[in-house]
Amino acid sequence: MSVHLDAPVTPAPLPVLGTEVCAPLADGTEIPYAALDYAASAPALRRVWEDVAAYLPYYGSVHRGAGHLSRLSTDLFEESRRTVAAFLGCRPDDRVVFTRSTTDSLNLLATSLPEGCEVFVFETEHHAALLPWQRTASVTYLDAPRSPVAAVATLDAALAARDTARPALVCVTGASNVTGELWPVPELAAAAHRHGARIVLDAAQLVPHLPVDVAALDVDWVAFSGHKLYAPFGAGVLAGRADWLREAAPYLAGGGATRRVARTADGGVETDWNTDDSRHEAGSPNVVGAYAIASACRALAEAGFENLAAREQLLLGRLVSGLAELPRVRVLSLFGEGAHRVGVVSFVVEGYDSSAFAAALSDRYGIGVRDGLFCAHPLVRLLTGAAAGEGAGCGEGPLNAVRVSFGAGTPEEHIERFVRAVRELTA
Amino acid sequence: MSVHLDAPVTPAPLPVLGTEVCAPLADGTEIPYAALDYAASAPALRRVWEDVAAYLPYYGSVHRGAGHLSRLSTDLFEESRRTVAAFLGCRPDDRVVFTRSTTDSLNLLATSLPEGCEVFVFETEHHAALLPWQRTASVTYLDAPRSPVAAVATLDAALAARDTARPALVCVTGASNVTGELWPVPELAAAAHRHGARIVLDAAQLVPHLPVDVAALDVDWVAFSGHKLYAPFGAGVLAGRADWLREAAPYLAGGGATRRVARTADGGVETDWNTDDSRHEAGSPNVVGAYAIASACRALAEAGFENLAAREQLLLGRLVSGLAELPRVRVLSLFGEGAHRVGVVSFVVEGYDSSAFAAALSDRYGIGVRDGLFCAHPLVRLLTGAAAGEGAGCGEGPLNAVRVSFGAGTPEEHIERFVRAVRELTA
Repeated sequence: MSVHLDAPVTPAPLPVLGTEVCAPLADGTEIPYAALDYAASAPALRRVWEDVAAYLPYYGSVHRGAGHLSRLSTDLFEESRRTVAAFLGCRPDDRVVFTRSTTDSLNLLATSLPEGCEVFVFETEHHAALLPWQRTASVTYLDAPRSPVAAVATLDAALAARDTARPALVCVTGASNVTGELWPVPELAAAAHRHGARIVLDAAQLVPHLPVDVAALDVDWVAFSGHKLYAPFGAGVLAGRADWLREAAPYLAGGGATRRVARTADGGVETDWNTDDSRHEAGSPNVVGAYAIASACRALAEAGFENLAAREQLLLGRLVSGLAELPRVRVLSLFGEGAHRVGVVSFVVEGYDSSAFAAALSDRYGIGVRDGLFCAHPLVRLLTGAAAGEGAGCGEGPLNAVRVSFGAGTPEEHIERFVRAVRELTA
Repeated sequence: MSVHLDAPVTPAPLPVLGTEVCAPLADGTEIPYAALDYAASAPALRRVWEDVAAYLPYYGSVHRGAGHLSRLSTDLFEESRRTVAAFLGCRPDDRVVFTRSTTDSLNLLATSLPEGCEVFVFETEHHAALLPWQRTASVTYLDAPRSPVAAVATLDAALAARDTARPALVCVTGASNVTGELWPVPELAAAAHRHGARIVLDAAQLVPHLPVDVAALDVDWVAFSGHKLYAPFGAGVLAGRADWLREAAPYLAGGGATRRVARTADGGVETDWNTDDSRHEAGSPNVVGAYAIASACRALAEAGFENLAAREQLLLGRLVSGLAELPRVRVLSLFGEGAHRVGVVSFVVEGYDSSAFAAALSDRYGIGVRDGLFCAHPLVRLLTGAAAGEGAGCGEGPLNAVRVSFGAGTPEEHIERFVRAVRELTA
């Protein structure tokens, strides 16, 4: 069945910037660019852009500025915090810290772990979720589970064997940045809490695709990036429990996080640090970035996030079934047949180098995807069957993969063009 | 002599956003807002805004994206690095790392210090330059010097007494965020190097006001923020020597900074980190923020930075001489009569609480300034005469100060209005 004959998908995509931009093709012609690398960075929502554009003339120094625009910007920044908290379904006592990215958020949490903390993380995670903990905790790397049920059992067994006198944290992704597959977050959270551990959700690939409810999922923290949530202005979020964050040393040493700084009698300097949200936001906050994230949250909520997610699933169905018809294409999956996923799909093509394949999609069809190991080396090697020495360089190596990813701004035509392109390239 | 009678100042101010924005006054009327808190955050240059607006439809995932827009964004990001390097007069081997702010840049350098490093810093620094070093080095806090010559002598004496077997770093501001006074950077750099120490320049308040030439100043690193350089999109810069940065642990652990990540035989995870600019830029870089800074660099260079600086000095002369006529106003100065400064002036008003004074400037004149201790508590207390216990909270306390600051976007009328307002409020 050709994807061309499918019925139109509703609702319409959310307007994003860049839909008019043309990409040059190898034959000298050009074609409207199909941005299918949302999992790396999504285009800006037009609404986010309009909000930022409307705000920027009113931009002013935040915090202690006495002028009208300073007060307005300070209010807007704090209001953005509340908007994000509401969007995430945070508990009343949760903190929302504006960081610069998911990576930054998880590094912040890593520096906030209590003394003697143990961290449990699956080897299948993105490097941002895999690597920060080694610096501040003893880490147990869990082998890749081959089903959601196995994931819960693996975690359960690992936590059962731990020393419960020590604090513990589980870090898990909501949706894989490689396979797009959903992880069983509520069950993993329950397992963590059953054993007295905390859990942080790497929601970088989840928040743009599905409503996240921190309280309902019962996760302790959630981290995500603005640039994957249609708000590419340099900000990210760490939201969740206040206690570890309040008790940790400030993430950065500097102004904005200080209550009082004074010389001491012995020639030193002593500092009283803030204990509120600003504790980990030293330096002037990125007001534009925070406001852009809040704008995206509002836009997705107002559009009806459930509808957008349903639409994405329709497109995803067409994409996956289109690829399934092609014998040389192998879609990567950790959880196998029937796994639920968001609009993120990685695959390898028999007889094709993935970099060359991605380049062909760009040069012949104006389609932007990504090839490589997607900053999740152990997982991609596991799924492609590469040895650990191969695929170094986050991209070089014969057993890399190609990843296609999309979201709320993606028109049907991009998915249709992509499936047609893969069919033609593998014919 | 009234400032109203002065000749028009040329060149015209650089166009910035927000000049049409009106602020409400206490009497129910409104007036175009006078943004005179540039030292905290400057308005965006119109040129920066136009560049960001033109780019954003072309925004794409950087680094390993294979599509047209990904390649374009990656090129733009790396080109921004080169633009900043040229703007700063960097040496050929210098690195430009995009951070989120000056605070972030100096914290990055603090985590990059070699083992056993000693840091020398004057107590007069902004907290961002005062506080990061305690975490990773032994710090010598130098007493406030009362002249540029005394600053060099103080540093020289401190470095002469140090153990030269240990690496050492001097951190010094280019222009005080409180007094606006210029520090003798070339002389301090020469002193540092004479004693085998490195030097980092906190240029947060210098880069927006005067051309900075890293090679000519002979400083090892320079740090500044985009939001003070008319580019408020969440990015900052640390530029300078590659060696300490290359040898240091990556600032953040995560993707983008990794060359190869693999499980080890004992169940752990081992990582090979990048050694180039990306080593300290884990996570998706803030392309918009970096491009905005590069745009500001280009705009200032093309407008003729020397002309803009000369214009600022004319306005500064009017402002300072206007305040000098007012007996109740005391301008804060560390270096005293004849000190050179940029467009940053702090003062106290006899019989006036500084917060109330700043509020009056806003409520009656639509002028946005700042009051408090400006994240430089020891310096402001020294200059206002407050005891160390007073002025806590970065703002509360009778001996806070008021700070007025401006730059390339400031029209004469704002300075005239400010001087008139202070005169009327203190009459």
